[in-house]
Amino acid sequence: MSEAKNTSFEECLQKLIVSLEASLYEEATTQLANLHSAEIARLLEAIPPKDRAQLWLNIDTGTQGDILKDLSEEVRTQLLSKMEVDSIVEATESLDMDDLADIVPNLPESALHNLLLTLDHKHRNHLKRVLSYPEDSAGGLMNIDIITVRDDVTVRTVIRYLRLLKEMPIDTDQVFVVDRAYKYLGSIHISTLLTNEAEQNIAPLINKNFHPIVADMPEHEVANLFERRDLISAPVVDKNNQLIGRITIDDVVDVIRDQAEHSVMSMAGLSEEEDVFAPVLQSSKRRSIWLGVNLVTVFVAVFFISLFEATLQEKIALAILMPVVASMGGIAGTQTLILVTRGIATGRITTSNLKVLMNKEVAIGVLNGIVWSLVISAATYIWFADLMLSLVIALAIIVNLIFAAFSGAFLPLLLIRFKIDPALAGGVILTTITDVIGFVAFLGLATLVL
Amino acid sequence: MSEAKNTSFEECLQKLIVSLEASLYEEATTQLANLHSAEIARLLEAIPPKDRAQLWLNIDTGTQGDILKDLSEEVRTQLLSKMEVDSIVEATESLDMDDLADIVPNLPESALHNLLLTLDHKHRNHLKRVLSYPEDSAGGLMNIDIITVRDDVTVRTVIRYLRLLKEMPIDTDQVFVVDRAYKYLGSIHISTLLTNEAEQNIAPLINKNFHPIVADMPEHEVANLFERRDLISAPVVDKNNQLIGRITIDDVVDVIRDQAEHSVMSMAGLSEEEDVFAPVLQSSKRRSIWLGVNLVTVFVAVFFISLFEATLQEKIALAILMPVVASMGGIAGTQTLILVTRGIATGRITTSNLKVLMNKEVAIGVLNGIVWSLVISAATYIWFADLMLSLVIALAIIVNLIFAAFSGAFLPLLLIRFKIDPALAGGVILTTITDVIGFVAFLGLATLVL
Repeated sequence: MSEAKNTSFEECLQKLIVSLEASLYEEATTQLANLHSAEIARLLEAIPPKDRAQLWLNIDTGTQGDILKDLSEEVRTQLLSKMEVDSIVEATESLDMDDLADIVPNLPESALHNLLLTLDHKHRNHLKRVLSYPEDSAGGLMNIDIITVRDDVTVRTVIRYLRLLKEMPIDTDQVFVVDRAYKYLGSIHISTLLTNEAEQNIAPLINKNFHPIVADMPEHEVANLFERRDLISAPVVDKNNQLIGRITIDDVVDVIRDQAEHSVMSMAGLSEEEDVFAPVLQSSKRRSIWLGVNLVTVFVAVFFISLFEATLQEKIALAILMPVVASMGGIAGTQTLILVTRGIATGRITTSNLKVLMNKEVAIGVLNGIVWSLVISAATYIWFADLMLSLVIALAIIVNLIFAAFSGAFLPLLLIRFKIDPALAGGVILTTITDVIGFVAFLGLATLVL
Repeated sequence: MSEAKNTSFEECLQKLIVSLEASLYEEATTQLANLHSAEIARLLEAIPPKDRAQLWLNIDTGTQGDILKDLSEEVRTQLLSKMEVDSIVEATESLDMDDLADIVPNLPESALHNLLLTLDHKHRNHLKRVLSYPEDSAGGLMNIDIITVRDDVTVRTVIRYLRLLKEMPIDTDQVFVVDRAYKYLGSIHISTLLTNEAEQNIAPLINKNFHPIVADMPEHEVANLFERRDLISAPVVDKNNQLIGRITIDDVVDVIRDQAEHSVMSMAGLSEEEDVFAPVLQSSKRRSIWLGVNLVTVFVAVFFISLFEATLQEKIALAILMPVVASMGGIAGTQTLILVTRGIATGRITTSNLKVLMNKEVAIGVLNGIVWSLVISAATYIWFADLMLSLVIALAIIVNLIFAAFSGAFLPLLLIRFKIDPALAGGVILTTITDVIGFVAFLGLATLVL
C-alpha cells in the first residue's frame, strides 16, 4: 500500500512475467497479494490472455470484485466469461452500486439474475435507478451513498447523527440539505461542521450557490464542470429537483482519462477500450476496418493521378516529386485540424468565433505556402535543373497549403453538424482532400505548362 | 455560479463577440460580471488578442488574479505584458502560494521584485520553497496550506482547534499528524473526526498505510498515483520525511488534462500551450518547424523513388499505384505505434512484455498483409489487367505491413531509450520508414520482375 511500490510497477510486472513463463501460478498469485486492486488490474492488462485467465482464477473472489471495476471493459468481459455464475455473484455483491452498474452490461444473463436476487429491495431499486440512465450521463456516473440532513437543525444535531452512522461513505466532502419531499436545497461542506460551534444553526451555513447536476447531463459536460469549478463531489437531481445521488471526482477523473484516450486512439481508428494483448484474429479484424477505409480513400487519390498518365509519361520527375506536394499539404492541414478539433472539445472554438479563426488559419496557409514553396522550388531546381518544374511545384504547394488550412478549420465543424466524431474521421478525410488537391494542382499545372 | 450557465457557454461567447465587434467594451465587461474565473479565462482564450487585451484592462484587479491562474501560459504572458507593475502586484498578492508559483515564471522581473516585497516573511519563505522544486514535480504541484495535529490528543481537542481556525483551507479532506520535528506520521480523514466520539484518542484513528509523496516525484507519477488510489489529497514530504505540503486533486486533474492535450497536439508537432488565436506570424513560425522536419523526411522518401526512374518510365502504372503501398503501411504502422505509445504511457507495456507484444503485432501484420494484398492485387488486376503488376503490389503490401508492425512496436521503446518523446517524433519517423520500405519494395520488385 505504499507509493514506493508504485514506482516499481515495472519490477512487479517483470517478476510476474518470469513466474508465469515458468508456469508458477501460485507464486504469481502470491506476488499480487499486497497490491492495490487498481494495480492488480493494470498487471492483468499487461499480460497475455492465457496467463491472465489462469492467474485470475487463483485470486480470491473478495478481491476479484474490486479488480473487476478497475479493468478495461474488454479484459473484464474476457475474465467474467471464465467465471462460474456463483463466483461472479460472490465477487460483485459487495460492490458500490455505481461500480456494479458499470459492470452489469458485461455480466452473463444468468449471473445478473442471481445477483439481483441477492440484493435487498433497497439496493435493487438503487441499482435499477442507476441503470435507468445512460452509462455516459451524470445518472450513470453517480453513486447513491449520500448523507442528507434537514435545514432546521444545529451543527450539534448533525454531528450526533454522523456519530450514529459510525462512518461516512468514501470521499464524502459535503452533506446535502433536502426538504421533506427530498427536494435539493443546498450543501454543507463537512469542514464547515468542524469549524463552527455546536449551537450554530445550520441554515446560514448552507451553500445554495451551486445548482445541482441534472441526471441526464452528458458525462463530458460533467467533467468540464468539475474541472472548471475544482469540484470534489456534486449532487445529482432528477427532473423534479429531487436529490438522487452524487458524483465524485474519482469517477470524473476516469471520464477525463477515457476522453483523452479516445481522442488519441481514434486517430488510428482504434477504440480506447482495446486490450493490448487481444487475440491476433480479433485485433486484425478490428484494425482491418480502418485499413479498408484508408484503401478506399487512397484509391480515390490515385484515381486523380491516373488522369494525368500522359503528363507523367512525358516527365517522370513529376512522379518522383508528387509525394512532396501531397505530404506538405497533409501536415499543414493536420496541424489546423488538430488545433481546431481540440479547441472545439475544450470549448474555445464555436461557430461564433469560427470566422476569425478561419481568416487566421488561411493567412497562415498563405504565409507558410509562400515560404515553403520557395524552399521546395529551390531544392527542385538544384535537383532537376528545370525552371518550369520548380515554378509548377511552387504554385502547387501554395494552392495545397491554403486549401489544407481552409479544410482543416472547416472540416471538424462540418463533421459535428453531421454528428460524426471529428477525432475519428477528420484525419482520413482531410488527407484525402490534401492528397487529391496536391496531385491535381501539381499534375494539372504541369499538364498546362510543360 | 449555476451549471445552467455552463451549458450556455456558447451563448456567452456569442454575446461577447457581438459586443466586441461593435466595440462595446463596457457592455462586454458587464457580461463577464457573474461568471466564474475559470469561465472568464476560457472566454478570453476564445477571442482574438486585440479584443482580449482591451477587455482585460476593464476587469478589476481582484478578479484578474483568479483569472490569471486559470489561463494557459501563452495567453497569461500576453495579458501580463499589458499590465502596469502595480496592477500585477495587486492582482496576484492574494493568490495561493501554489497558484502564485505557477505564474511567477511569466511575471516581468520588476513585478516579481515588488510582489516579493509585499509578502510577509512566512509567505515569502513558502513561495521560495515551492519555487525550489521543478514545476513538473510533486514539489511544484503542492500547496502549503495544511492542517497538522499531534498524535497524543483526543477528537475533542482537534475539533476545538479547528473551531479556533474558523475555516479550513479549500479541499481539506484530511488533517496530517506530525511529531515534534514535523516528521510525517500519518493522516486522519476529517469525516473520521465527525463520526467518532469526542473522548476518543486520535492515535488509533490515524491512517499510517499511505506513504507520503516525496517532493521530487515527477508530476506524471503523482497523477498515476492519484488515479490508481482515487485520492483527493496527499501529503508531500522532503527527503527527511518532514511534511512540507499537500497536493490536491484539482491540480492533478490539470496535469492529467495537460498530458492528454500534449499527446494529441504533439502528433502534429504543436505545443499544448498554443493560443488558438496567436498572431499569424508567430503561429506560422511555430508550425514551420514541423513542416521543415516533414520536408526532410519526404525528400528522403522521394530520393528512394528516384532510384527507380527507369522502371517508372517503363511502366507508368507504378507511379500511379505507389501511394497505395506507402499509405497502407503508414496506417498499419500508426495503429501499432499509437497502441504501444499509449500502452507505455499508461504503464501496460514495458520491456518485460515487449516480446509477447512484438510477436502479436507482427502476426497481425502478416495476417492483414495477406488479406489486404489479395484485395489490392484484385483491384489492380481489374484496373490494369496486368498479372505481374498485381503480384508485385501484393508482395510489396505484405512486406510493408510486416515491417510497419515491427517498427510501430519497436520504435517507441527505442525513442524512449534515447530520451525522445515517442508521441512527438514517433509518427513522422514511422511514416518515413513505411514510405521508404513501401516505395523500395514495390519499385524494387517491379525492377526485378517486369
